Amino acid sequence: MHVGYAPPRSAIDLALGTVGIAEVLELPPFEHLGPTDVADVLDGFGRFAAEVLAPTNRVGDVEGSHLDPATGRVVVPEPMRDAFARWVTDGWPGLAVPADLGGGGLPALVGIVTEEMFGSANMALSLNPMLTQSGIHLLARWGDDEQRATYLPKLVSGEWTGTMAITEPDAGSDIGAVRTRAVPRSDGRWELTGTKIFITWGEHDLAANIVHLVLARTPNAPDGTRGLSLFVVPRDHLDAEGNPGPRNGVRCLGTERKLGIHGSPTCTLELDAAVGELVGPELGGLAAMFTAMNAARLAVGLQGLSVGERAYQQALAYATERTQGRAAGSDPGAGPAPIIDHPDVRRMLLLMASGIDAMRLLLYTTAAATDAARSHPDEHVREAAAARVDLLTPIAKAWATDEGVRITSLALQIHGGSGFIEETGAAQHYRDARIAPIYEGTNGIQAIDLAGRKVRRDHGLAMQALLDELAVDAGSLAALDVGLRDTATLLHDALQGMTKATSWLLAAEGDDWLAGATPYLELAALTIAGGLLARQAAHAHAHADAARAAAAAGRLRFFVLERLVPASALIDAITSGAARLDRSHLS
Amino acid sequence: MHVGYAPPRSAIDLALGTVGIAEVLELPPFEHLGPTDVADVLDGFGRFAAEVLAPTNRVGDVEGSHLDPATGRVVVPEPMRDAFARWVTDGWPGLAVPADLGGGGLPALVGIVTEEMFGSANMALSLNPMLTQSGIHLLARWGDDEQRATYLPKLVSGEWTGTMAITEPDAGSDIGAVRTRAVPRSDGRWELTGTKIFITWGEHDLAANIVHLVLARTPNAPDGTRGLSLFVVPRDHLDAEGNPGPRNGVRCLGTERKLGIHGSPTCTLELDAAVGELVGPELGGLAAMFTAMNAARLAVGLQGLSVGERAYQQALAYATERTQGRAAGSDPGAGPAPIIDHPDVRRMLLLMASGIDAMRLLLYTTAAATDAARSHPDEHVREAAAARVDLLTPIAKAWATDEGVRITSLALQIHGGSGFIEETGAAQHYRDARIAPIYEGTNGIQAIDLAGRKVRRDHGLAMQALLDELAVDAGSLAALDVGLRDTATLLHDALQGMTKATSWLLAAEGDDWLAGATPYLELAALTIAGGLLARQAAHAHAHADAARAAAAAGRLRFFVLERLVPASALIDAITSGAARLDRSHLS
Repeated sequence: MHVGYAPPRSAIDLALGTVGIAEVLELPPFEHLGPTDVADVLDGFGRFAAEVLAPTNRVGDVEGSHLDPATGRVVVPEPMRDAFARWVTDGWPGLAVPADLGGGGLPALVGIVTEEMFGSANMALSLNPMLTQSGIHLLARWGDDEQRATYLPKLVSGEWTGTMAITEPDAGSDIGAVRTRAVPRSDGRWELTGTKIFITWGEHDLAANIVHLVLARTPNAPDGTRGLSLFVVPRDHLDAEGNPGPRNGVRCLGTERKLGIHGSPTCTLELDAAVGELVGPELGGLAAMFTAMNAARLAVGLQGLSVGERAYQQALAYATERTQGRAAGSDPGAGPAPIIDHPDVRRMLLLMASGIDAMRLLLYTTAAATDAARSHPDEHVREAAAARVDLLTPIAKAWATDEGVRITSLALQIHGGSGFIEETGAAQHYRDARIAPIYEGTNGIQAIDLAGRKVRRDHGLAMQALLDELAVDAGSLAALDVGLRDTATLLHDALQGMTKATSWLLAAEGDDWLAGATPYLELAALTIAGGLLARQAAHAHAHADAARAAAAAGRLRFFVLERLVPASALIDAITSGAARLDRSHLS
Repeated sequence: MHVGYAPPRSAIDLALGTVGIAEVLELPPFEHLGPTDVADVLDGFGRFAAEVLAPTNRVGDVEGSHLDPATGRVVVPEPMRDAFARWVTDGWPGLAVPADLGGGGLPALVGIVTEEMFGSANMALSLNPMLTQSGIHLLARWGDDEQRATYLPKLVSGEWTGTMAITEPDAGSDIGAVRTRAVPRSDGRWELTGTKIFITWGEHDLAANIVHLVLARTPNAPDGTRGLSLFVVPRDHLDAEGNPGPRNGVRCLGTERKLGIHGSPTCTLELDAAVGELVGPELGGLAAMFTAMNAARLAVGLQGLSVGERAYQQALAYATERTQGRAAGSDPGAGPAPIIDHPDVRRMLLLMASGIDAMRLLLYTTAAATDAARSHPDEHVREAAAARVDLLTPIAKAWATDEGVRITSLALQIHGGSGFIEETGAAQHYRDARIAPIYEGTNGIQAIDLAGRKVRRDHGLAMQALLDELAVDAGSLAALDVGLRDTATLLHDALQGMTKATSWLLAAEGDDWLAGATPYLELAALTIAGGLLARQAAHAHAHADAARAAAAAGRLRFFVLERLVPASALIDAITSGAARLDRSHLS
């Protein structure tokens, strides 16, 4: 049974080429890097992911990471601990952290590929560096010099890890309801008291210390999100040299029993006069959170791709090896055929393969725009790129995580009855993938973010700029002369439908835009993905061998027919307003 | 936290009225029954399901049913055993088994409602009666007088339970690969030897005996499905009075660790010279299996409805109780609102509610046709009804089970982070629902069955007859004058699209029809469901109170816009042929 992971390097390279790795490597901070440097990193990390991380995925699921009530420590399965330790000693953390913070200084576009591989190899473990990354973002942007000097080197090196301690029992999607209190001490520090729930990797024994970034409310702070401040709270107090000493007032009360990602401990943390420092200005908590939000949401969207890719690899291997029945049209005397010979199985695999391509292009495009937004010499380009990151982030987060659920479900289905048996491993991917549409802002919240903040607030300019670019890609298809003229026409129709939906959204009143937000996001994702697949087909036609170019064209054609055309018909639903959602329709 | 189950009687009554319970009660075997008799049964069983069965659902998931290697017995959680025992002593088994077989003689249309409730209350336990039912069907149709006398009374009363022992390690979807051997004995009985896997409720301690119906191959039988024969093999030998004595050569080697339905033991059974009797003619195994197949597939389709309904009830309660954020358009000083006030949450609930209505109508329509096919005095009506059952069964099985997965996923999503925590209970429904698209013929096989046996083989006549009927329902909408004219137009367009897709399917050559089978089934399901929802809206307008009629109209409108219109756009995919699925498109 195939349960390993092989980094899909040729698909990754094609996607990187399509979204413009060459242009990213021309940005000032990366001028010293060439394509072979990138290839070396991806080769090296790919080997590490396949050989060291991937074999720990199953034991993490079966054993899980749990609180040991006797010690108050969370015990992580031994193989995962060992793999994490090697990740640190081999120097992989901080690859894409800027060099001036002590990181490897690679582009976000290269970082996202290594994160994809990490997530495919062991999603539950990958959450740990993901949250540390958020801590690094926040402290780099808002921490004072001393805080940066104290925490950043340890976080970047992987010696310590980070958490985001936001959610409380009554403050989930609504972070304005956070009640944890922070009281000033005479030494300039603060004492925090409250209960945080669903804290990913909130306690564990992988690192020498854990750095909690905590949202809390200072005395006399206003209600709601405006009253929140951000604090850094180390699990263990630091001595004068910055080394961890006795425990601070943070305690793990329990770990959740979850549907999936069992290897990742999800902790309830009690803060009892825990000593911390304010990060950034008082009442600046919400603004600070926004700093790390795009990256975190993109990282969660990436999980849909990562788990989907791993599930696909397993399903493809199974479909190639498992024989059952005879293929349609085969000789009556023929022996049993591998199930990939059945058209319906190939259709499921192609739904997966084209969806994975689409996710990868959407995510990598966002990462490439992140690099341009940070580092392009032209301010106008930086601003446009930043607007694109803002626009694409909720789409990538929501659509890729839903797609991850769909793809892992198809992978399970291809295994038939065996897929339902835990030993096969397909069920783990299906369980693991299911959290991603929920955390870092539910997908419903992403849809509202897209429709409200990202489209209505800028009058649809960033969206239309992207649609106009993609129309060029669609137009270039016809010139390829590879039987894609019909596809180009369908793509143009879809892009026009998207413009029409956007116009409606901008003019919508009352609750109507909220009622259309989720199908609008779905239409946007599939339309943009279709355009990016066209871009990839053109790129492959120009730069890849004939077989790969034909495959890229085939997946594009399939995706447009099976996914984009039906999604385009959502426009009636999007524009039908809130009246259709009247509560009286529910019993 | 709401984790109970309340039988949705008003929705059930509306659906029963819509699909023609009145006509069913006029059929000869049911002439003695009136509406109050039906209501009494549903009231009584509904109470039993809610009060006795439903509370056992969670413990069945947490503890599970497992083989005890020391005794070779499978241990079922105590509360499930107790509930099953009460189900038997209270006389509920066999309600819809014909009176001449010792059953309650109720219509299939009433039986399906009690089965729906049982499945909502405890899906894992409901599999036990479901498989016993298949055994009853097979023995009633194919058993000789002695076999019927020996087994039927015990199976109908629930004293013994049944299994279907078909699948083997290399014979899953391809039952022609079954290798279990049956060797004749001198006493006219047979000795069976082989290994069966995935045998649901294959061993347990709920009943005094277990009656295995086993597919096996007799000496010199041809290869493939033509070489199969059906045998009845009791777990315990019967003495001269038909009472269970010493163990027969059937042993449970293990129970699977599964994604869901933990309460239902999935057994590997070793047959080692197990003594059994031939049921029906030698080599008649496949034909016999077809006898029970429609009912079994309909019962599995029903699981999508059952679990979906329970998940919906929990999600609706949560959305009504859980407060988070303020509602759109509310006073800035307003307190936190229940999440049902958010349009996106209402949209998820309405996707669930309309999907549940659609499933219920599709399943009940098939059950009503089953009654007509068995009992209508006019042979032509019986034949047409039988053709309708054949046509609708694969649609109901595949679409309702996929829909069950979608609905339980939405229910989980509505719970946010809590949905991912096992304690909440939403995850169990999501895990339980995932088996139904796989067993009793994967949904891919249902699609091939629909496109091949049910449409191409009868030149589309049964399908077109149904579409013509539904066009009348769509037409009647406009006359209702309740703002459904646009919906009626969209429904007419969809019905015409379905006719067009069917014409294409009938003319398709080579692999093309196989390549279009799954999207064809999806289009068929949504179009037929749309038509049935129109029928329900008209029925509610004529027979229900204004609020219920308005809700039925609202759900119809929503379903057509959000589900049917996008599905209608699948026609391009359906008719695009097998070339789009070329293996070279897969890496």
